[in-house]
Amino acid sequence: MNIDINRLLGRIEQINEIGSLGKKGVKRLALTKEDQAARNLLKKWMHDLNLDVKVDTIGNMFGIYSGEKRDNYVGIGSHLDTVPTGGYYDGTLGVIAALEVIECIQEHNIQLPFSLVAINFTNEEGARFQPDMMGSLAYANPDKLTKLLQAEDQDGISVRAALESIGYAGDMKLGKLSFAKFFELHIEQGPVLENEGVHIGIVEGVQSIHWERITLLGKNSHAGTTPMNMRRDPFRAFTALINYLNNVLVKYDVQLLTVGNLNISPNVINVIPDKLIATLDLRNPQYDTLKEYLSEINWFIENDKSFSGLEVERDVLVHIPTIFFEKSIINILEETSDKLGYSSKKMFSGAGHDAQLLSNLYPSAMIFIPSKNGISHSIDEYSSLEAIKRGANVLLNSIISLAQ
Amino acid sequence: MNIDINRLLGRIEQINEIGSLGKKGVKRLALTKEDQAARNLLKKWMHDLNLDVKVDTIGNMFGIYSGEKRDNYVGIGSHLDTVPTGGYYDGTLGVIAALEVIECIQEHNIQLPFSLVAINFTNEEGARFQPDMMGSLAYANPDKLTKLLQAEDQDGISVRAALESIGYAGDMKLGKLSFAKFFELHIEQGPVLENEGVHIGIVEGVQSIHWERITLLGKNSHAGTTPMNMRRDPFRAFTALINYLNNVLVKYDVQLLTVGNLNISPNVINVIPDKLIATLDLRNPQYDTLKEYLSEINWFIENDKSFSGLEVERDVLVHIPTIFFEKSIINILEETSDKLGYSSKKMFSGAGHDAQLLSNLYPSAMIFIPSKNGISHSIDEYSSLEAIKRGANVLLNSIISLAQ
Repeated sequence: MNIDINRLLGRIEQINEIGSLGKKGVKRLALTKEDQAARNLLKKWMHDLNLDVKVDTIGNMFGIYSGEKRDNYVGIGSHLDTVPTGGYYDGTLGVIAALEVIECIQEHNIQLPFSLVAINFTNEEGARFQPDMMGSLAYANPDKLTKLLQAEDQDGISVRAALESIGYAGDMKLGKLSFAKFFELHIEQGPVLENEGVHIGIVEGVQSIHWERITLLGKNSHAGTTPMNMRRDPFRAFTALINYLNNVLVKYDVQLLTVGNLNISPNVINVIPDKLIATLDLRNPQYDTLKEYLSEINWFIENDKSFSGLEVERDVLVHIPTIFFEKSIINILEETSDKLGYSSKKMFSGAGHDAQLLSNLYPSAMIFIPSKNGISHSIDEYSSLEAIKRGANVLLNSIISLAQ
Repeated sequence: MNIDINRLLGRIEQINEIGSLGKKGVKRLALTKEDQAARNLLKKWMHDLNLDVKVDTIGNMFGIYSGEKRDNYVGIGSHLDTVPTGGYYDGTLGVIAALEVIECIQEHNIQLPFSLVAINFTNEEGARFQPDMMGSLAYANPDKLTKLLQAEDQDGISVRAALESIGYAGDMKLGKLSFAKFFELHIEQGPVLENEGVHIGIVEGVQSIHWERITLLGKNSHAGTTPMNMRRDPFRAFTALINYLNNVLVKYDVQLLTVGNLNISPNVINVIPDKLIATLDLRNPQYDTLKEYLSEINWFIENDKSFSGLEVERDVLVHIPTIFFEKSIINILEETSDKLGYSSKKMFSGAGHDAQLLSNLYPSAMIFIPSKNGISHSIDEYSSLEAIKRGANVLLNSIISLAQ
């Protein structure tokens, strides 16, 4: 069975006129007027398909297509909100594909032994309100609701007030629908599938992640008059650390290391800096490998002479072990890809997704499709018609095989 | 012969009440009301010593004590302007010591076969108007006067207007007094003399200097989804370069390398940066060594694999070969230190000074005294009474030995 790619892309085009940045760019921050308009359009489409539309207390939207066993739910979804320079498919594809799957199943009069639910999660991106993945976080952790509703954007508007102002402060209890399975179709947001020429990524889990901020304090002095051996230069030490960490990377299978944020002060050409603040972003599908790699950092800072005379402060910002998706769903996705004649590859997600939060309570998995040049969160984000079609077909046929 | 340390320090204390920041800090930016008040006090002291006071067209002040040969001039001087967080002695010591030397010579009725001139150069620091060392630059390069007078501070006030407003737009021609010798007493602004326990630095010259700005352009991508071998990360490349340059430093005698200014963008924790702009400050007393070290940079950028896939832009901001001071004066300073029983060390200046510009036309040299912890341009700048006394005594006795 095949999804109707024209109908699917047509809906994606139509909903992305809301908040369009021209070309293939969209700005649709969570709980804004644009998000409201996109939600209203989604609700209309859900009603067109005779779905039972529910909104929960954090604004997550559910379109329920009742099957034989009404209280047995299978969820499919993602998010309609975007970052300020969002692309067409990040999130939106997963929501619209859920509708498309339901419409195909309706057209073919396939009987489902479960109710199928198309879901739009609130504020996955976290661009306006933090934390990100807010809707799925709340859904799987109802005790966090009160605090999440109090989160404010930079203008002091709370999530609660924003939900009320756009009419999406729903009354369904968080966790009300208990999913037997949850599926999310998403773009890869990385270059691996495209580079390896693979059609489908079967996401086994989300890699472990460690974020920390390192502050190094040294001594500010004159670049022309201070001999090298009398310096206490935090940038020199940080350079030695990062170079060491890059050199030992080969020993740590698929370990990632990124310095994305760094500031030195006073930041003047002829003054040796006295302060450096930088972040480290470490990721690895193997949590044990990540921890071993972390111990290299500890070792270097404690033992390398470049750090002598410096004060070192380290603040862990995020530290999450690897999350594993459900084996049974992974198997279904893999078999379905094979049957459809698509090449596939098991892989870990580098980025966070709603499915990751849901997976704490509900058996979950994800399907990735190739992202051109690995780009996302950009007007240059792009996935081909063929890639989208393949991804949505895997989703549709996996649901069907689940029904059999 | 000994200078009167109480009189010398008394004048320094008195003049530093003008623009005082409390403790031992002074803010006396060039050509401000504070500079005007300090100049007026200096002029009063010059008149008290019966000196003939002249001001040239860039505002440099000269107090001439006529000797037997009126048209044979020996200059001693430095500057009264400071950076916004200046110390007590940077510049000021050299000007006040010139007065003290003249007063000592007058008291002892020593006949000089030359006229001795105490000098205050305009805007040495360059904190308000650029370039720095403006007064000495103009004095040795009169053809630059028109352009220098047009230089503006950040409020759009020109040097010409500022000179006029404080009454120091003089009429003496630049270069009018042709110095047979020029001496400058200054604090080291570095830690070498203090660390080695040496009393006097005999400055042989000013080390060569190379400033450049490096811009590296790569590709902005997701820290969680981009494999290490698919990255074009300018910070990773820069880290490798700087670590390499630090490691090979040992091969390059007394080579200095400083990264004082660095910015990456977008500067976000989970985004691999696409742009890095940083500066390199390289210095070496041996110009040839500096050039060899520079060739290491060229080699690394062209050959190391970390730079593959990056665009590299390099802009040279400053490139000045080593400046050598006059041997005959260096010898006098060394002999005088020996006679006075002070330990001395020949060294190069890491920072720029007025004597460096004058040395292009007039035989010049400098005397350094120890700076506590090597600190300058700070309220924590400090040199001891004993250090100041030794430095001024070397200056006085060198002038006397020149007269004999």
